[in-house]
Amino acid sequence: MSYQQKVRDAWKKNNSLLCIGLDPNQKKFPSHINSIFEFNKQIIDATADLVCAFKPQMAYYSAQNAEKDLLETIKYIKNNHPQILVILDSKRGDIGATSEQYASEAFDRFKADAVTVNPYMGHDSLVPFLEREDKGVIILCKTSNKGSSDFQDLLIDDEPLYLHVARKCVNDWNKYKNINLVVGATNPNELEKIRKLAGDTPLLIPGIGTQGGDLQSVLKSGLINNEGLFISSSRSIIYADSSKNFAQAAREEALKLHHQINSWRNENVK
Amino acid sequence: MSYQQKVRDAWKKNNSLLCIGLDPNQKKFPSHINSIFEFNKQIIDATADLVCAFKPQMAYYSAQNAEKDLLETIKYIKNNHPQILVILDSKRGDIGATSEQYASEAFDRFKADAVTVNPYMGHDSLVPFLEREDKGVIILCKTSNKGSSDFQDLLIDDEPLYLHVARKCVNDWNKYKNINLVVGATNPNELEKIRKLAGDTPLLIPGIGTQGGDLQSVLKSGLINNEGLFISSSRSIIYADSSKNFAQAAREEALKLHHQINSWRNENVK
Repeated sequence: MSYQQKVRDAWKKNNSLLCIGLDPNQKKFPSHINSIFEFNKQIIDATADLVCAFKPQMAYYSAQNAEKDLLETIKYIKNNHPQILVILDSKRGDIGATSEQYASEAFDRFKADAVTVNPYMGHDSLVPFLEREDKGVIILCKTSNKGSSDFQDLLIDDEPLYLHVARKCVNDWNKYKNINLVVGATNPNELEKIRKLAGDTPLLIPGIGTQGGDLQSVLKSGLINNEGLFISSSRSIIYADSSKNFAQAAREEALKLHHQINSWRNENVK
Repeated sequence: MSYQQKVRDAWKKNNSLLCIGLDPNQKKFPSHINSIFEFNKQIIDATADLVCAFKPQMAYYSAQNAEKDLLETIKYIKNNHPQILVILDSKRGDIGATSEQYASEAFDRFKADAVTVNPYMGHDSLVPFLEREDKGVIILCKTSNKGSSDFQDLLIDDEPLYLHVARKCVNDWNKYKNINLVVGATNPNELEKIRKLAGDTPLLIPGIGTQGGDLQSVLKSGLINNEGLFISSSRSIIYADSSKNFAQAAREEALKLHHQINSWRNENVK
């Protein structure tokens, strides 16, 4: 099945554009939780009917010697919720021969449906990912952090670098229509420009929640055909509560966001 | 000890600017080699008196489920050759909270002396690395691959992006003098411009060997005070031979490159 079709199915499954980031930090776990997989499993069980995707952030697993938990987590999601996408957020990118190894890490070892990558090294650094026709390649375009202005906003022929990145990705490199872009929720104006340029390319939007992005601006600027987005929230959902009820609290936060997103979509359609 | 001092000590130890990349691919191993660590160990034993640094390429370990071998490899180098630098080549970079995890991956888990990182997300994405005063942060500037021209060469105020990256890194972000830059051996003109701008900042130069970079141009443009470089070669050394004598063959290739580099340096001094 094409990646495009997988994305459509994922949005449809729970009528949801919500993506929950699985950024497990053992220091923040409720005291009765003994493993990263156990933490993730409870979050997944509590929220899988509300999301289109789960997005494990690789850095947390790498720092904590927890590749096994990541593997178990992804297997658990795919076994129990095959239509929900797994986006491995690892922001890889290297010379071609090395990127082949990173593509293998994401797709063969961890069996993710999509992976985030960094465009700085250019086309050949992304080819090994792009050639996996049935997998998603989610390329950093305009990120949600303050430092994103350092280089991404620099003007080249009167246009910021991030628009040059968007254009190359969408117009030149998207043979298998498996490119998506990362656009921070903290930049609604930029999001509007990228949406205009990128047509119906799916956009992954981190930065809602802890990072302070405004949901309504994101939906207003980013929706296309009333879909087209992965709206991602991590810490404000998974750490909503640190008691025994953390998973239920995560569900309540996720439900709130899911409702907010879909209320706007329903009004927008009318 | 400061990172700057560690670098000087590493260059001095074997009077060498040579860095050997440890990019182990089990498919290319001689048939009598049973593990990645065993392969690396033999390469290290055969070449440690010729180098200033070893540079394990993370992607190979990640793709092959070999974090344990990476850990053993780095421990083996540091136990037996404490002055030789270990550069973890992983090209990381993410929002601050996530980069903290990646800094922990490189420096706490794997105990590398330095790590390669990607500048696209800007300053705050690098701060968690930069704050490790005794560790090196080797930032991609102008890379050795063909696609490096896609974005790194775009002109901003008549200057390519990679020079803007170099300037910010060296002038604004280098509080602890622990920034180094990656500059591909395949771009000697660009190397010259970067060297002018970056003063005595150490430059990591991949692309000699398999990627076709010209050593003499690199030395001519890149040396400062007759040092200032990590000249990195991976595949053309470690896969020089696929027989039982692979480690000896690797030594011979490394010795050749070491001699070529030092002959030039000696002539240059006269």
